[in-house]
Amino acid sequence: MEIFSYINIGGTIAFVASGALAGIRQKLDIFGILVIAFVTAIGGGTLRDLLIGQSPVKWLMDVNIIYLIVGISLATILFRKYIDKLDKTLLFFDTLGLAFFTIRGIEVGLETQLSTPSCIILGTITACFGGVIRDILLNEVPTIFSKEIYATACIVGGISFFVFKNFDISQTLLELLTFIIIIGIRFFAIKTNFTLPKIEK
Amino acid sequence: MEIFSYINIGGTIAFVASGALAGIRQKLDIFGILVIAFVTAIGGGTLRDLLIGQSPVKWLMDVNIIYLIVGISLATILFRKYIDKLDKTLLFFDTLGLAFFTIRGIEVGLETQLSTPSCIILGTITACFGGVIRDILLNEVPTIFSKEIYATACIVGGISFFVFKNFDISQTLLELLTFIIIIGIRFFAIKTNFTLPKIEK
Amino acid sequence: MEIFSYINIGGTIAFVASGALAGIRQKLDIFGILVIAFVTAIGGGTLRDLLIGQSPVKWLMDVNIIYLIVGISLATILFRKYIDKLDKTLLFFDTLGLAFFTIRGIEVGLETQLSTPSCIILGTITACFGGVIRDILLNEVPTIFSKEIYATACIVGGISFFVFKNFDISQTLLELLTFIIIIGIRFFAIKTNFTLPKIEK
Repeated sequence: MEIFSYINIGGTIAFVASGALAGIRQKLDIFGILVIAFVTAIGGGTLRDLLIGQSPVKWLMDVNIIYLIVGISLATILFRKYIDKLDKTLLFFDTLGLAFFTIRGIEVGLETQLSTPSCIILGTITACFGGVIRDILLNEVPTIFSKEIYATACIVGGISFFVFKNFDISQTLLELLTFIIIIGIRFFAIKTNFTLPKIEK
Repeated sequence: MEIFSYINIGGTIAFVASGALAGIRQKLDIFGILVIAFVTAIGGGTLRDLLIGQSPVKWLMDVNIIYLIVGISLATILFRKYIDKLDKTLLFFDTLGLAFFTIRGIEVGLETQLSTPSCIILGTITACFGGVIRDILLNEVPTIFSKEIYATACIVGGISFFVFKNFDISQTLLELLTFIIIIGIRFFAIKTNFTLPKIEK
Repeated sequence: MEIFSYINIGGTIAFVASGALAGIRQKLDIFGILVIAFVTAIGGGTLRDLLIGQSPVKWLMDVNIIYLIVGISLATILFRKYIDKLDKTLLFFDTLGLAFFTIRGIEVGLETQLSTPSCIILGTITACFGGVIRDILLNEVPTIFSKEIYATACIVGGISFFVFKNFDISQTLLELLTFIIIIGIRFFAIKTNFTLPKIEK
């Protein structure tokens, strides 16, 4: 679906903006902010490409994505006072990006002939690992390990993908249903402030 | 030796359990605990595979190891109150795993025609790096850099491997002797509370 | 130019020494210091090799670099009281190494037929990423994100490289000019205590 490439761009923009804002909060200089924005946006896809042996990794071959990331980072720095108020818009794009990157990772796994669990893991890595590297670079325990229903939406979405795949539906419908499930879980969790149970020691 | 595949499984189980317990201590949610257990178990082998260009990395192709890790993680969470009392059993398996993964890494290095020092480094990375990533994700300075004779056992074991290799002994005996040396050093260090000297500034 | 291989060795030595000194400051044991020195020296080149799919990564195939790193690390530990006073010598070599590794990364990118921005990024990663991994392992927010004109010298040097390339000059002159620019920026920044502006939230 053509729409997916727009969503890809929207998701990348959201990931870049969230990375840049995290860098600004930590009082990094411009270069530090650029790097954090960069790894947030491409970290998940990079680890995926390394794990499956896709080389060179894809973003190195795509000059447009590099210009997009640098441009959005600078725009985020310039308009930082307004973007903080755009929290909901950002969250919306971030969730679209999460869903898109999960599906992309699963399909790359299928192209590489991986097993179902490996595809689901690859989708989750693609969607979530950029944020994990961002948190490591900023010297924090990665948020997704303790605070939010985030990766869980990817995993449930991934499982759904393979359940739906057993039915005789088109690729487009399959992607669309997975997309809706991931976005649905994420928005439901945000609305209801739902988190996974902590394990009491 | 057939026994090595049992030890491989025992070592993986110990690494998973130690990762899961570390996640529980840090009050992560179930997903966070799963991820920490996963990287502790497969982190070392993954870095090894990336460095030598084995692609896709091996665990992505082995669905059994994924089910094993998820299963043991959930079991560790369920029985966490008892496992803490199993400290010695865990330590025993962990040491077996350490020895096994070191030998495995060295042999992968030999298959890739690497030099002796590179093989020893590769063995040590295979055995120790999962724990290093675990500590980084939990935002701690990796334990093995300051507290325990751990990697040192792998390095000495690796050097012994290549010393023994000069003698005309069978592959099985070579592996067994290396195994005993790594386990011996580790248990001796634990019993006597022996550590490497700190460097006074 | 033959001189570049001397500079390569000089740069590696400086990176090893700076890593080892950082490990000593954190009171690591000998093994920890060796690891920190190692990753500081080879971390940038390793990530570069992984990203472009150079496998096995180059240092695994080069036993001399491994002996050099171990030797310099031990020498740094032995003579630590004197090296601290050698701050300026170290800084000098570190800057030479920074310039050399940037040019090396750019040229590897060109050999891999990457676009201009990708080559500049690859050069910067080669020169700076070892220090980033060192800081992550020591549980600190990477220095280069907030304190110094460091990566910026690589980026400006990289841009200059491609500007000069449009003129009809020899490869040697091209490398030399880039070299001088990177070193010039870095020394100017150190002398004048110049930093990138922090972004006020």
